[in-house]
Amino acid sequence: MKEERILLAHGSGGKLSHRLISDIFVPAFKSPLLSPLNDQAIFDSPCSRMAFTTDSYVISPIFFPGGDIGKLSVCGTVNDLAMGGAKPLYLSAAFIIEEGMLISELKDVVSSMARTAEDAGVEIVTGDTKVVERGKGDRIYINTAGVGVIEDGVELTPANIRPGDKVIVSGTMGDHGMAVMARRADMQMEIPVESDCAPLNGLVEAMLASGGEVRAMRDATRGGLATILNEFASSSGTSISIVEDAVPVRESVRGACEILGFDPLYIANEGKLVAVVSSSSADVVLAAMKEHPLGKDAAIIGEVTEGPKGRVLLETPVGNKRVLDMLTGDQLPRIC
Amino acid sequence: MKEERILLAHGSGGKLSHRLISDIFVPAFKSPLLSPLNDQAIFDSPCSRMAFTTDSYVISPIFFPGGDIGKLSVCGTVNDLAMGGAKPLYLSAAFIIEEGMLISELKDVVSSMARTAEDAGVEIVTGDTKVVERGKGDRIYINTAGVGVIEDGVELTPANIRPGDKVIVSGTMGDHGMAVMARRADMQMEIPVESDCAPLNGLVEAMLASGGEVRAMRDATRGGLATILNEFASSSGTSISIVEDAVPVRESVRGACEILGFDPLYIANEGKLVAVVSSSSADVVLAAMKEHPLGKDAAIIGEVTEGPKGRVLLETPVGNKRVLDMLTGDQLPRIC
Repeated sequence: MKEERILLAHGSGGKLSHRLISDIFVPAFKSPLLSPLNDQAIFDSPCSRMAFTTDSYVISPIFFPGGDIGKLSVCGTVNDLAMGGAKPLYLSAAFIIEEGMLISELKDVVSSMARTAEDAGVEIVTGDTKVVERGKGDRIYINTAGVGVIEDGVELTPANIRPGDKVIVSGTMGDHGMAVMARRADMQMEIPVESDCAPLNGLVEAMLASGGEVRAMRDATRGGLATILNEFASSSGTSISIVEDAVPVRESVRGACEILGFDPLYIANEGKLVAVVSSSSADVVLAAMKEHPLGKDAAIIGEVTEGPKGRVLLETPVGNKRVLDMLTGDQLPRIC
Repeated sequence: MKEERILLAHGSGGKLSHRLISDIFVPAFKSPLLSPLNDQAIFDSPCSRMAFTTDSYVISPIFFPGGDIGKLSVCGTVNDLAMGGAKPLYLSAAFIIEEGMLISELKDVVSSMARTAEDAGVEIVTGDTKVVERGKGDRIYINTAGVGVIEDGVELTPANIRPGDKVIVSGTMGDHGMAVMARRADMQMEIPVESDCAPLNGLVEAMLASGGEVRAMRDATRGGLATILNEFASSSGTSISIVEDAVPVRESVRGACEILGFDPLYIANEGKLVAVVSSSSADVVLAAMKEHPLGKDAAIIGEVTEGPKGRVLLETPVGNKRVLDMLTGDQLPRIC
């Protein structure tokens, strides 16, 4: 039996486009805001500050251990909202599909988006589909944009970071990037590495509810932990020192990194955040994180110091200190 | 002198990504909301209904008579907001760039976005850049999402359409699609066809300010006028009759359509809207449109009738009536 494939006409705006929307997208996303199929979703806006973000997802392969491009496209945007202290409310979903993609694969991706959106408590309310010719894409690229609401009093920004603050990571570093790289390299591993791809808004809510002073948060995606720490140090005009041994890394990830020649501190994560909190709040925030399933391996890994502005220092297990620079070049293309 | 090109590393999240953002995007888009370079833009939300929309732009070629992919990516999303009766406020901009794209071309596209956003009175406040390998994209794809605010009392939806209502188009049909097709076919024309690509929010404001009862509006993009009329008829359970001779079409567009074998009623527009208004309001709305530069060729082209639900009828110049169906197949791939 011949499997159905995406045709250029699915992107025409005509009958096939309408069928794709009504047969695949609307039943999967089930939002009453989506159903009128106008070109825009309309919602009552809360009278407060809102956050707005966007990301495109071009990961290859589109299915990988622990996730797929659909799950990733919801988690990534939910997380970008959550990192600003926002409660994510609504997402858009825009697809650029390569002619010839199997419709069954598209359905798998879309179901995964719908499941993840439900887990994260967000609604996919508006969308778009374009189809490009074979060789002008790579099966599917997804863009999601998101809007969320920020409660009064919440203000998370690297500008708030002060010397003395503590740096916390929510769990093991490098899982997502190494899961994808191991799959690409077709590595057989004793303990397979899985992506950590997950929506972090629940964890962030728990952290904010702890009452601790959280200064800034960011999810450690492209460029990994090292890049985020550099962004924090440079935006706040501080120096950050971290202890290499304090950074949680799975044995399997460490092993895969050694074989493939990567440093886990530069590897992308999709379900981990880096937070800077006031020194006096570190324990209470850490405890709140550890009670959440996505924060059980959370750890304090270092602190903010006066030092040279924008410098990140790594204390190695043998007690040396070296500068941990921002990622240069492209270690892992199309990791998200 | 060797021209700079986009490298995979520009999508890494590391140093080159940061340089691309700080050297090209931030200076062009100049929004104070964009400048903190957090992963999300934060704004005060008005206490009212909001509209949220997204579109990806994959047009080929990226520069065409009357516009480029950057201008298009702002107009298209501004127009989708405006069609819901919203005043567009903020846009996101996400780029999927093919490795090897000339940086000078990227700069041209980005400047065009910035100029168009300024014309339309919207701010580009958040963004994302991904780079894919050669042969996995086509120079540049852009996604924009947008949020806007809807004033109290404004409710535009095809569900409001009633028999007796009049159908108005804001100007000539088919300009955008034929400009792109003529460029692709390398046609030499006496009077060159230019895309009508334009932000319609000002025109919509004028229409709403006229006090006339506007039921629904949509911009006649992919699938053209015929597809929009079918959507209106089927969403409202009415029939729509239009008079072919009443539909404004430029002579040059009509000529290009004849040569290439297209029907202007199915050709995409990027700066034209189709509105359904109450019969008693038709004249006042039309007059308001004609006073706006983007509505000077506006015309009443037909009316809504009881007839069979979802049917669109076209009265031809010789007095025949035929069913005008939704676009089937893909006349013009990658037209937007």
